[in-house]
Amino acid sequence: MDLNADLGEGFGVWALSDDDALLDVVTSANVACGFHAGDPRTMRRVCERAVSRGVAIGAQVGYRDLPGFGRRFIDVDPDELTQDVVAQLGALSAFARVAGDRVRYVKPHGALYNAIVTHEEQAAAVVAAVVDVDRTLPVLGLPGSAFLRLAAEAGLRCVDEAFADRAYTADGALVSRRLPGAVLHDAGLVAARCVAMATGQPVHDVDGAELRLAPASICVHGDTPGAVEIARRVRTELTAVGVELAPFA
Amino acid sequence: MDLNADLGEGFGVWALSDDDALLDVVTSANVACGFHAGDPRTMRRVCERAVSRGVAIGAQVGYRDLPGFGRRFIDVDPDELTQDVVAQLGALSAFARVAGDRVRYVKPHGALYNAIVTHEEQAAAVVAAVVDVDRTLPVLGLPGSAFLRLAAEAGLRCVDEAFADRAYTADGALVSRRLPGAVLHDAGLVAARCVAMATGQPVHDVDGAELRLAPASICVHGDTPGAVEIARRVRTELTAVGVELAPFA
Amino acid sequence: MDLNADLGEGFGVWALSDDDALLDVVTSANVACGFHAGDPRTMRRVCERAVSRGVAIGAQVGYRDLPGFGRRFIDVDPDELTQDVVAQLGALSAFARVAGDRVRYVKPHGALYNAIVTHEEQAAAVVAAVVDVDRTLPVLGLPGSAFLRLAAEAGLRCVDEAFADRAYTADGALVSRRLPGAVLHDAGLVAARCVAMATGQPVHDVDGAELRLAPASICVHGDTPGAVEIARRVRTELTAVGVELAPFA
Amino acid sequence: MDLNADLGEGFGVWALSDDDALLDVVTSANVACGFHAGDPRTMRRVCERAVSRGVAIGAQVGYRDLPGFGRRFIDVDPDELTQDVVAQLGALSAFARVAGDRVRYVKPHGALYNAIVTHEEQAAAVVAAVVDVDRTLPVLGLPGSAFLRLAAEAGLRCVDEAFADRAYTADGALVSRRLPGAVLHDAGLVAARCVAMATGQPVHDVDGAELRLAPASICVHGDTPGAVEIARRVRTELTAVGVELAPFA
Repeated sequence: MDLNADLGEGFGVWALSDDDALLDVVTSANVACGFHAGDPRTMRRVCERAVSRGVAIGAQVGYRDLPGFGRRFIDVDPDELTQDVVAQLGALSAFARVAGDRVRYVKPHGALYNAIVTHEEQAAAVVAAVVDVDRTLPVLGLPGSAFLRLAAEAGLRCVDEAFADRAYTADGALVSRRLPGAVLHDAGLVAARCVAMATGQPVHDVDGAELRLAPASICVHGDTPGAVEIARRVRTELTAVGVELAPFA
Repeated sequence: MDLNADLGEGFGVWALSDDDALLDVVTSANVACGFHAGDPRTMRRVCERAVSRGVAIGAQVGYRDLPGFGRRFIDVDPDELTQDVVAQLGALSAFARVAGDRVRYVKPHGALYNAIVTHEEQAAAVVAAVVDVDRTLPVLGLPGSAFLRLAAEAGLRCVDEAFADRAYTADGALVSRRLPGAVLHDAGLVAARCVAMATGQPVHDVDGAELRLAPASICVHGDTPGAVEIARRVRTELTAVGVELAPFA
Repeated sequence: MDLNADLGEGFGVWALSDDDALLDVVTSANVACGFHAGDPRTMRRVCERAVSRGVAIGAQVGYRDLPGFGRRFIDVDPDELTQDVVAQLGALSAFARVAGDRVRYVKPHGALYNAIVTHEEQAAAVVAAVVDVDRTLPVLGLPGSAFLRLAAEAGLRCVDEAFADRAYTADGALVSRRLPGAVLHDAGLVAARCVAMATGQPVHDVDGAELRLAPASICVHGDTPGAVEIARRVRTELTAVGVELAPFA
Repeated sequence: MDLNADLGEGFGVWALSDDDALLDVVTSANVACGFHAGDPRTMRRVCERAVSRGVAIGAQVGYRDLPGFGRRFIDVDPDELTQDVVAQLGALSAFARVAGDRVRYVKPHGALYNAIVTHEEQAAAVVAAVVDVDRTLPVLGLPGSAFLRLAAEAGLRCVDEAFADRAYTADGALVSRRLPGAVLHDAGLVAARCVAMATGQPVHDVDGAELRLAPASICVHGDTPGAVEIARRVRTELTAVGVELAPFA
């Protein structure tokens, strides 16, 4: 099983997550590439530290939106989106190579991630960027999304992820953050769900019914102190039941 | 002899130079990499057109300063400058590779170009970025500058350039733009000087004395309609006297 | 009748429209406020020249989107949009006051203009900003839009505008720019339509049927050399038939 | 005596200081205006809370440099600097007025603050902006700086400040942050120095000699948890010895 988290989401003097703490937890780092977060110094530092700890570097690509941290849908022209993603992949690749490795996968961020669950043109635009840059790069995304479907059609390797701390509907979709209960805050519960996902057991959906998720990667968060604690608990309990943690890429 | 010019210096809806016209004149394109100008769509288009015309792609790296177009000295920390240059090289590299070629050289832009004639720390910072990314990349700069000296010491290939339309002092420095006569506007005179430079003849310095410049590349400009005309004249007259034009890289 | 146009839509070294030419044509200047275009020096220069020619200064407020020139819908949180508009009004107000006048009206730009024809939350957010800053400021917009409806409900003065060079559907909506014939390029035709609008005569909608538009202001464009020519022709023909041109505000 | 601190220095999702904690300590808030930090929502929130607690709102104006947080000298053209400051004053003014008050003073930030201790052209440019916008606005700065001298010559009210946690040289200049001992971290010592400054007693300069500072305002910091503690201690001890705290403006 792979554990992924967003890293390097600062900008200049500002930081968001505790990158060093997360690098001790995850096996894959979704590194912000400068368009919604992530200045060059941060990109370099995170890449170097990821490499030194054996954590795989992934490109966390987003809308060009520093003021909104990439969390707002932007109706960007698909061709422009493709080139925005190419630029992000290029910048992060330089830092990954300087650090002695290379970008190992691509995971869209925030509003872009959500948009391309259903937005065919933008999903195709992101796929086109990956194909242009390196068609051997896997993409990490939501099972059933337009993004993963189009990526598969384009011949890209698709990797399913599940969210450690998010509630799911009966059909495997995420419960909207605007609804109560969408985000789970109990570390024990979150860790138990991850163990279930990693060992072929069902979890409970938002209505209490059984739901079987079979992700190749589980996404944990680190943008609050409590989130880092939960992530550590997830790692500890997965390891305790004998789940081997390693990058998928 | 190589002819280089700044290209792709637009941003979003805004453009500056007539890139297509210049691509018919030059043999090397200094392509803006997004920090002082150059959005991803423009980078891609210029790279694709450069490749299709056999024009070499160079990385025109600058300060992170869209509002000032990279024309203002910024007292940036050297380590941050290194990472800013790495990010620019990475982004442009992605577009050069998508276009079927690769970045062939590095040329600093504007205030950064001027600063590292004498600013040792910033000069070293740019050199460090090139060394980090690809130590086979040549750097294009002003003969006698700290930048080229430090680049040579670091084992980089250094390429001397001269400016087609700038007046020089007796010791080969550029006359400050704030002084009268610093920029030459007569197309015939500019072209004649370029022919002299390319054929081993002296030109006149700002005081009328003979000055021998032996550049491997001549920089022409294209940011005004008149400038494009001058650039065309330079190419025509160089070709007329049998100077072969080809990328230095 | 009032003639309005977008001005000051440059950024740093880049320019878009010929502001000086337009200031000789229009009676109201929609001045970009820095979020989608418009650096402070441009704002100051345009405000000073507008005041010196008796042209009313309006705040052309847009999404925070320099890379996209405010032409892309952004799903910004309504409260954030309100504060973004307040900031834009504040910045332009400072320049208008330095120039000896004040901001006389508000007109949304680009994708924001289009969004708030129907997007109730964003329309309300723009209205809230105007109410917060100065409830005596008129708003200029599309007749029938959610924006003008909500502005009227909030007690703001609403001013209807028509577009000189755009085709209309039978119900007075703009034909989408993606459809053929959406933009009129014949200067004579455009001017004749403006004369009709200004004198109580009908124009032809996109299907050739009669449509009566009764704007208090007509929007002309200046972002291409041809557009300035058309704008001049509109002014000339309106004046020729005795239509008095003056700011609505 | 007045206590001032920098507030609202976040951007979008990122925050720096604990604004609410500081608002309980200071009597004057230097609010970031969006060019080096400070998004519109933050400006609004800080202005509203400052007004509700009787804290005076000052404009913390800086270079246009979000990536560098305004901490890097930029050799900006003086006229451009003037207009950049006008725009910042305008934006913050709108929020101050919406909150029911107005901007009460101007204090430059970071590298701009340091530059205009000696940089005559940039100092004059900031003064020109204040004169243009409102010549009744006091400016807060370093005693002996070019900025305060030129401001006084222009008829502006000048307010001297001292720094609670910075070491001074014998002539009243700040010890460079690059030197050891430049910043004081002992809360008791810092508070005792502030009490001395506020009661007409001398403090010790970096060499141990007596130095008499007579500020009208003392600057405290809040960008680290420890800094907020020190600021609280300063307030407590000043109050304990009977120093009345109130905005200077």
